[in-house]
Amino acid sequence: MNLMSRYEVVGDWGTSRLRLFRVEQGRVTARHDGPGIGAAAGQAEAAFAAAIGPWLEEAAPTQIRLCGMAGARDGWVEAPYADCPADAATWRAAATRFAWRGVPVAIMAGLACTGANGAPDVMRGEETQIFGAMARDPALGQGRSLIVLPGTHNKWAVVQDGRVSSFRTMPTGELFALLRDRSTLGAQADRPDPAREAQGFAEGLARAQEGRPLSSLFAARTMRLRAGRPAEWAAGYLSGLLIGTEIAEVADMLEQADDIWLIGDGRLSTLYAEALGRRGLVAQALDGDACSLAGLGLSGHPHHPHGDPS
Amino acid sequence: MNLMSRYEVVGDWGTSRLRLFRVEQGRVTARHDGPGIGAAAGQAEAAFAAAIGPWLEEAAPTQIRLCGMAGARDGWVEAPYADCPADAATWRAAATRFAWRGVPVAIMAGLACTGANGAPDVMRGEETQIFGAMARDPALGQGRSLIVLPGTHNKWAVVQDGRVSSFRTMPTGELFALLRDRSTLGAQADRPDPAREAQGFAEGLARAQEGRPLSSLFAARTMRLRAGRPAEWAAGYLSGLLIGTEIAEVADMLEQADDIWLIGDGRLSTLYAEALGRRGLVAQALDGDACSLAGLGLSGHPHHPHGDPS
Repeated sequence: MNLMSRYEVVGDWGTSRLRLFRVEQGRVTARHDGPGIGAAAGQAEAAFAAAIGPWLEEAAPTQIRLCGMAGARDGWVEAPYADCPADAATWRAAATRFAWRGVPVAIMAGLACTGANGAPDVMRGEETQIFGAMARDPALGQGRSLIVLPGTHNKWAVVQDGRVSSFRTMPTGELFALLRDRSTLGAQADRPDPAREAQGFAEGLARAQEGRPLSSLFAARTMRLRAGRPAEWAAGYLSGLLIGTEIAEVADMLEQADDIWLIGDGRLSTLYAEALGRRGLVAQALDGDACSLAGLGLSGHPHHPHGDPS
Repeated sequence: MNLMSRYEVVGDWGTSRLRLFRVEQGRVTARHDGPGIGAAAGQAEAAFAAAIGPWLEEAAPTQIRLCGMAGARDGWVEAPYADCPADAATWRAAATRFAWRGVPVAIMAGLACTGANGAPDVMRGEETQIFGAMARDPALGQGRSLIVLPGTHNKWAVVQDGRVSSFRTMPTGELFALLRDRSTLGAQADRPDPAREAQGFAEGLARAQEGRPLSSLFAARTMRLRAGRPAEWAAGYLSGLLIGTEIAEVADMLEQADDIWLIGDGRLSTLYAEALGRRGLVAQALDGDACSLAGLGLSGHPHHPHGDPS
């Protein structure tokens, strides 16, 4: 084994996506994207070995660090949850460590909290992005910030003086996909029409302010039937109604926050930024991959071997 | 053709169910249940002929009256909507009439209204049950009543002095089915457990009072993961959360109503009656088939050739 082939593997293995990075001397030199942990159907170890197969042919990694649903009960090896409030050191110490083919593996802990209403809440993967964001930007570790992580199960996390003090999960992304693709309220458009979707989004956001989300859902259908709205409009309307409702439900968190940060997918973050903007709030957007890598221990900005850094 | 074979056919052809009744001398002497208009895939006429095939072999009916999605754009023949406020005479006059194989057919009109927020709303089939309920019970035609018709697309209709003045549709039933069967929030239980479902329903109803439906959805998952709730519990919780949210959204309608009536499926009506009961409200339940038949012009109580009348 020559020195140049020494590498570690870090990554986020979520419900719907696997993102692995090959890291050499602190820099990302390759990445592998694949299906989520659900697709592994209980064979996570074999799926992981297959995913890094080309790298393994050259040499074994020096270490492996993973976050996300890899640590869920149905994942690779179950990792614990660290209870909120949690700081980075407590969270890192809670990782599950074991050896795989002689290589040290760390699967990062998730976070758990109890809401003000007594209901439990959990996250796996987003905590790595949150701690990564704090590592990258010390401003986030001071005062009281609200971090929004849009996705299938959106997280709204309160960070205070370097600790994640609480968070709230809303399955808005999952609900939206069900309504758009599998309900009588969504409509299949012949081709995407961003302008009509944007109009629907704006109308959905406005409707959300009435505070009657269930009553407002059916308009996705009747506005097509009776008010001439095109099919493309409905997906935008449903998205605006749900995101607007979600933001109204976190009004207490918004009022108490010194600043607001968005971590994740660019397109979704843009929609949330727009919805927050309607309430006069400015959110700063952070790149999701960069935050994951920082949370997994890589300092600085990631190197993108294929494509421009964003 | 002898006198005894003279019969008419009335029925409700909805999205998911076809219910046809053979009526002789004002009494139901047979019924046919089949799939909804969606299953006919644009071949409604042929599907109808097949459904009443055994009766046709004997003789042609003297007339046919249908309500529901048979009159939708993708149904048999499109019927108009009567605009609210609408009384029974206006609504009956709006039916679409034509001849099929020489037999006079009437497809009843739907109802349309515009909500206080300017959004259009529509129903097809439920209006027949509402006008039928008024025909059966004159008390319903006086003062201001609120009629709840639980189903895939629940209707909350205000009836004043014999007219349907407005209504609101909530696709609660469709949303519940999506969440229970197709989301990560529902859970498949090995076998139904009514007691655990009832406990989940009660907890969901209580949670709905917090007024944060999106935030409360994820607990269907985390209460199983972290608080020992069994899989059976989750369906009850989702149902209670959605129905409780729905009832909170019609608080204005509840306050203004002199009385509340429930029309439809017995099991669903029981859940709505329980949820309304938590708010100190008493709802009177009416049989859905009996109301449909009365709305289609049959007086008195229907005769059930198979099974006890309910």
